[in-house]
Amino acid sequence: MQILVDVMGGDQPPEELVRGGVEIGRLREMEICFAGDGRQIDHAIRSCGERPGRRFHILPCSQVISMQDAPVRSVREKSDSSMVRGLRELRNGTVAAFVSPGNTGAVVAASLLVLGRVRGIPRPAILAPIPTLAGQDLHLLDAGANADCHAEHLLHFARMGSAYAREVVGVDAPRVGLLNIGEEASKGSRLMIKSYTLLEAECPGFRGNIEPHEMLEQRPVDIVVSDGLIGNICLKSIEGGVSAVTGLLRRSIKSSAAAKLGALFMRSVFRDLRYTLSYRERGGAPLLGVNGVVVIAHGRSDAHAIRNAIDSARREVEAGLTECIARTVPPAEVADGI
Amino acid sequence: MQILVDVMGGDQPPEELVRGGVEIGRLREMEICFAGDGRQIDHAIRSCGERPGRRFHILPCSQVISMQDAPVRSVREKSDSSMVRGLRELRNGTVAAFVSPGNTGAVVAASLLVLGRVRGIPRPAILAPIPTLAGQDLHLLDAGANADCHAEHLLHFARMGSAYAREVVGVDAPRVGLLNIGEEASKGSRLMIKSYTLLEAECPGFRGNIEPHEMLEQRPVDIVVSDGLIGNICLKSIEGGVSAVTGLLRRSIKSSAAAKLGALFMRSVFRDLRYTLSYRERGGAPLLGVNGVVVIAHGRSDAHAIRNAIDSARREVEAGLTECIARTVPPAEVADGI
Repeated sequence: MQILVDVMGGDQPPEELVRGGVEIGRLREMEICFAGDGRQIDHAIRSCGERPGRRFHILPCSQVISMQDAPVRSVREKSDSSMVRGLRELRNGTVAAFVSPGNTGAVVAASLLVLGRVRGIPRPAILAPIPTLAGQDLHLLDAGANADCHAEHLLHFARMGSAYAREVVGVDAPRVGLLNIGEEASKGSRLMIKSYTLLEAECPGFRGNIEPHEMLEQRPVDIVVSDGLIGNICLKSIEGGVSAVTGLLRRSIKSSAAAKLGALFMRSVFRDLRYTLSYRERGGAPLLGVNGVVVIAHGRSDAHAIRNAIDSARREVEAGLTECIARTVPPAEVADGI
Repeated sequence: MQILVDVMGGDQPPEELVRGGVEIGRLREMEICFAGDGRQIDHAIRSCGERPGRRFHILPCSQVISMQDAPVRSVREKSDSSMVRGLRELRNGTVAAFVSPGNTGAVVAASLLVLGRVRGIPRPAILAPIPTLAGQDLHLLDAGANADCHAEHLLHFARMGSAYAREVVGVDAPRVGLLNIGEEASKGSRLMIKSYTLLEAECPGFRGNIEPHEMLEQRPVDIVVSDGLIGNICLKSIEGGVSAVTGLLRRSIKSSAAAKLGALFMRSVFRDLRYTLSYRERGGAPLLGVNGVVVIAHGRSDAHAIRNAIDSARREVEAGLTECIARTVPPAEVADGI
């Protein structure tokens, strides 16, 4: 298996991301292709004690899509970018999956343009892993690919998320919740109320509305669906809450000698906390519903985070994720699908 | 000044809430009227060493609107509930403000029914205080009164929030942000894009989009506006993130002797943390845009929290909040207003 990594456009330099790729390539005995500045990548591979061309390959590209670029326009104009070129390799079947820590909107736009949608899936969605106090992650989709959605889109998200939970995570009968602001079917916006009714009728694993704090504490379901705006607000608010607490802790520890001493005794606690909550351990968010395995890593990804993202792309390829997603579309809808 | 407290329908027993009311009534030398079960309230006032009828009054009511009740129906059917009766006292001018830790949807519905909207304000909104790392709170509205909104509603929220920041908090030139998933004007749903354009044109304090984590870390604005669904999801997600971290900390401290010892040295740090982040210190969320000062306290409010909620109602009455809100409506719209 060969997985392609777009090493440009993230917050970390290409060297850092190549290092993560080389580590996981060695561990899993698989080939990794790095797309981006050829000289930088060549140098980075050699710094890891490897020679380009054996297990580790270079796809030299002259352009970069940055975090500030407008998604659709940059994808159209930068045809020699690591992102567009990398996705073309995936479409041609040269590589089995594509991983990028770059501009999320651009990854979605480029994937739609280059790979296209799975027949019958109206909107691809980003599936984000969320840490919970129950130990196991749950998965939220859509985490930000589609700001405006219809209830039908949420039904597809529920089906795609369930397929992921079953085939990649290994959950027997995935339970699905609707992200909302109350338990009752009448809660939330018109979209939420309509989605509730549709999910109840069409999704066997549906368990009703889930509120954000419930999601983190009890992990009452495996998959949570929402439109991409609410999903993204929820994720960023959780992140904000977590980093507010850790920021406050850090600050008040610094301001007291006794607390500094106490913090020494609590090192293992803080290490556990960082480990449990960090996106670095989570391995990126797959984009479900496009023709190919695409994993969006966090923009801040370092070697360790990108290594986990590549490893989750590998698991998704091995599980035959794209075919699983295609099978979630009922036959009648495949015929209708464009 | 007399403030009325609905002591039924919260998670804590009436005795607890009466205790908080008596404390703040003594401190501020103001009268408090407690609405609810007459015998329980009488007993609670006497347990605090006071005699009913002097500074502390009882409005005996036979019905309770619970957290599980459907808002509109319960308000229509339970005309002798502490909530409906209390709001009638406010409408009649017997009391200056109404505070309730009860069913939020029911408080909104009952306020609309009993007090009515301020002329020219199409939708009342809940203003929630949010703790930030910068020390001072910022305020988010709508925190949950309206799930479906138009851009025009968000403009009214921006004006009402600015009036609150100016007149109650004392901010000279309040800055307003739009809660969104990215900085650029093109980010978010159609509602967000339209709201951005409208706010830019009509709201002098508008500073663009704000993402949830920014809001908590840097406090770049004084007021953040959003529809009630997104506002409520954001609040509950922050709460969830915060309690996930503190829950994890608690658990791992318990599991190690060294960490237990460390935690002893860090007591002041944890006390600071609780203090900074707790809703108990924040004093409830006013419902802006109805004819009267209405404060919604957290359902879990204990004596200390309800005391702060009553105290913030007092500040709002003293600032002439309802009149300030009425002045936010441009004269042309007052004439059009129903």
